[in-house]
Amino acid sequence: MSKLQNRLTNNPTASEILASPSDHEGARKNLSDCLAAIEQYEAEVHAFASIDKNVSVDDAPQGLLTGIPIGIKDVIESVALPTEFNSPLYENHQPVRDAACIAVLKAQGAVVLGKTTTVEFASLGRVAETRNPHNLAHTPGGTSSGSAAAVATGMVPIALGTQTGGSTIRPASFCGVAALKPTWGLVPTEGLKPYAPSLDTISWMARSVADLERVLLCFEPLEQIPQLKDVLRIGMYRTPYWEKADASTRSALLETVRILESHGHIVEQVDGPAGDEELNQAQDTIMHAEGRPAYLAESLQWPDELHVDLRGEVENVKKISPTRIVTAYDYLGSMRPAMEQAMSGFDAWLTPAVPGEAPAGLQSTGDAVFNRLWTGLHVPCVTLPGFRGPSNLPVGIQLVAPRFKDRHLLATAASIEKMIKDG
Amino acid sequence: MSKLQNRLTNNPTASEILASPSDHEGARKNLSDCLAAIEQYEAEVHAFASIDKNVSVDDAPQGLLTGIPIGIKDVIESVALPTEFNSPLYENHQPVRDAACIAVLKAQGAVVLGKTTTVEFASLGRVAETRNPHNLAHTPGGTSSGSAAAVATGMVPIALGTQTGGSTIRPASFCGVAALKPTWGLVPTEGLKPYAPSLDTISWMARSVADLERVLLCFEPLEQIPQLKDVLRIGMYRTPYWEKADASTRSALLETVRILESHGHIVEQVDGPAGDEELNQAQDTIMHAEGRPAYLAESLQWPDELHVDLRGEVENVKKISPTRIVTAYDYLGSMRPAMEQAMSGFDAWLTPAVPGEAPAGLQSTGDAVFNRLWTGLHVPCVTLPGFRGPSNLPVGIQLVAPRFKDRHLLATAASIEKMIKDG
Repeated sequence: MSKLQNRLTNNPTASEILASPSDHEGARKNLSDCLAAIEQYEAEVHAFASIDKNVSVDDAPQGLLTGIPIGIKDVIESVALPTEFNSPLYENHQPVRDAACIAVLKAQGAVVLGKTTTVEFASLGRVAETRNPHNLAHTPGGTSSGSAAAVATGMVPIALGTQTGGSTIRPASFCGVAALKPTWGLVPTEGLKPYAPSLDTISWMARSVADLERVLLCFEPLEQIPQLKDVLRIGMYRTPYWEKADASTRSALLETVRILESHGHIVEQVDGPAGDEELNQAQDTIMHAEGRPAYLAESLQWPDELHVDLRGEVENVKKISPTRIVTAYDYLGSMRPAMEQAMSGFDAWLTPAVPGEAPAGLQSTGDAVFNRLWTGLHVPCVTLPGFRGPSNLPVGIQLVAPRFKDRHLLATAASIEKMIKDG
Repeated sequence: MSKLQNRLTNNPTASEILASPSDHEGARKNLSDCLAAIEQYEAEVHAFASIDKNVSVDDAPQGLLTGIPIGIKDVIESVALPTEFNSPLYENHQPVRDAACIAVLKAQGAVVLGKTTTVEFASLGRVAETRNPHNLAHTPGGTSSGSAAAVATGMVPIALGTQTGGSTIRPASFCGVAALKPTWGLVPTEGLKPYAPSLDTISWMARSVADLERVLLCFEPLEQIPQLKDVLRIGMYRTPYWEKADASTRSALLETVRILESHGHIVEQVDGPAGDEELNQAQDTIMHAEGRPAYLAESLQWPDELHVDLRGEVENVKKISPTRIVTAYDYLGSMRPAMEQAMSGFDAWLTPAVPGEAPAGLQSTGDAVFNRLWTGLHVPCVTLPGFRGPSNLPVGIQLVAPRFKDRHLLATAASIEKMIKDG
C-alpha cells in the first residue's frame, strides 16, 4: 500500500480554473490543456467515442461551469456529437435534442468536448476499448469506462457517467479519480438510454470534491449549504461482502480510519440493518427485471443483430418471476428507511468502493459487489482516490449518506479528501 | 343513471378487424373508417395534435396489430409526426427516433395515424383544446385528452396515453372507453417526456377489453394466459375518498355489484390497509418532488417563456422538504405490500374511477382523487364504460389488482365487461 502519486496530469480542476474570474481567457487556456492531454493520451487510452476538437468556449454563458469542457458518457443523447451507446445498432445516431442533464450543464456554461466510451447501453454486450491510464493492460472499470479514464488523464476536468449497479464508483476508483453518484431522482434522466429506470442514476467524476460539488449545485440549486461540526462522526461499515475486499481495499480503509482518528474525528464500527446480506441480490433482481422492457424494442427491430446478452434480458433468461420482482421491490422499500435509521447521527459511513485494484485485461470491467447495495438503496455515494495497491494501481474508498444528504456528504468528503492529501 | 348508449361510432375494434385474417384489405377498410370518423368529428372534438392522413397499412409487418391505426399521446416521441408536448417551447420538434413503446407497436404491425392532444408535458401548464365528444361543452378529461376522445369517436381503435396521477383512467371514464394503466415498469418509458419517473406509466385506451389485452401482449409476451374460476371473488373498495364520489359513480358501482351477484359471483365490502388515507397525499408529494428536476433544463433554457406552473415545480413552490420526500417514498414502499396483502384471494377490487361525469368547461380536466393512490401503488388499473350520469355523460368504473397481475385483471375485466353489456 502506497499513497497515490505519479499524477497523470497537472491540468487544473474546474474549481481551480474558475477561482480566478477572467474574460474567457482562462477557459481557452484550459481547453488547450485538455486538448494537449488528449494528444498525449487518447491514442493509447481510447477514452472517447467522439471528440469535438473545434468546440469553442467563447460563447459559453456565464454560470457555475463557464467554459469548462466536459465529457459525456455516450449513453446520454447529445446534439453536438453522435450518440451510439457503443452499440452497432445505433451507429451514427444523431439526436436532435440534448439530454436534460447536458442542457443543464450547458446552461451553466459547460461545453461538451467529447462523448466518452461505455459498455454497450451501459449494461451488457460490447465492452469499451478503453484502457486504464495507470496501466494499459488493465481495465479502467465500467460501464463509465471513458469518463473515468478521461478525467484521470486531464483530458476533461469533469465527465458525466451513469450508475445502475456500480458503473460510476467502480471505474472512478480504478482510475484514481473522485466521483459522486447522487441520490436517485435528483438528476433528470431524460435523454439517457434506460437500463433499469428505478436504479439508473446520472453521476459524475472529477479530480476534486470541489468539482463534484460544483456540478451538484447545477442540479440542486435550492439546498442549504451544510455546516460541518468540528468533530466528524464516521461509521466504518464492512458490508456483508467484506470477504470480497482484498488486502489493498482493507488497507485503504484502515489507513483512512487512522488518518481520521489522528485528526481527532470519531470512527465507529457499524452494522447494517437486519437483512442487509440480501441487498445485492435484490438490486440484481430489479436490474435484470427492468432490463427486460428496456431492450424489447431493439429485440423486435433487430432480432438477429441484438447482442445475445441483451436479448437474454428480453427473454428473461434468468427466469425472474413476477413474485420475485415484487419481493425485491418491497424488500428494498423496507431496507431504505432501515439503513438510514442505522446511519442516523453519522456524517457518513466509510465503506469499500471496490474489491481492490482494477483487474488485468479489458473483457471484465470488475466486480460491483460494493456498489450494488447502495444503488439499490438510492443513497448518495462518493469515492475518493488516495491509495494504491500492490500493482501500483489506484484503490478508492467510498463514503455514503442517507438520501438527499448529497451536499452534507460532499462537505464531509471534502474534509476527508484534505486529510488524506495531508496524510 | 342510464346504461351507456348512443354509440358515437360503429367502427369495429382492433380485435374484430383482426379476427378475420386478410391480405391487408380489412386493414385498408378499417383505416378508411377511421379517416371517415376523423372527417366527421375532428373539427369539433380536436383530439389530434397532428394527423398523418397519408399513412399506409400496406407495408405493416405481420403481428398482433397488423395494419391497426393507433393514436399516440403527443408526449411520446415519434419519427413520423412532430412531438410538441403541447408546449410552445417545442413547436415543430421532430425527433429522429421513435419512443420504445411506439417501436414495439410498429413492430407488431400498428401504424401511427396521429398524435393525440395532451395537457402540456402531461403535467401542468397549457390544457388541450379537446372537447368531450359526448358533449362538446365538457372536458374530455386529461392529461390524455385526445387519446380518450379519439378512441370514443372511432377515429382510432387504440390510443396510447400516460398516467402519473390519473391521466388515463379519468379521461377514459369521462369519454366512455376502456383503458388499462399497467403495472409500473412493465412498458418501457424511453422516449416519453418524463414528469415523475417513479410514477409515469404508459397506458392505453380502446373500445373493448380484448383490444386492451392485445396491446398488453405486445409488451408482455412471456406471461401465461390466466384461467379464471367460474365464480369471481371481487372486493368492493370505497377508498378513503368515498365522499368525493357523487351519486352517478356510486350508482355505477352498485349496479356493477348487482350485475356480478346476479351472475353468481361473490362481492365483498373490503377495507384497505391501515394508513390508506395518506395514499393520495404521498403520490402528490412524489409527483411534485420529481417534477422539480423534470423541468430544470427547460427553466434554464427558457427562463422567461416556461409556463408559470411548470416553473413552480422547478422552484419548489410547494416547499416540499427532502424529509417529506423520503417519508413519502418509504410510506409508499410499505403500503404496496400492505395493499396487496389486503387484495390477496380476490380476482380484482372494484372501486371508483372518477368522482362522476366530466365537469363542464375545458379549463379543469377533472379530479384524479380515485387514481392517485393506485398510480402511487404501481398496480394495474382498468376502467370499463357502461354507465351514464344525470347529464347523460359516461361514468366509468375501475378494477384494480396487485402488481404484475395485469393479464389476470384484464381477464376478469373482460368477464365483467360482458356482464355489463348483457345487463
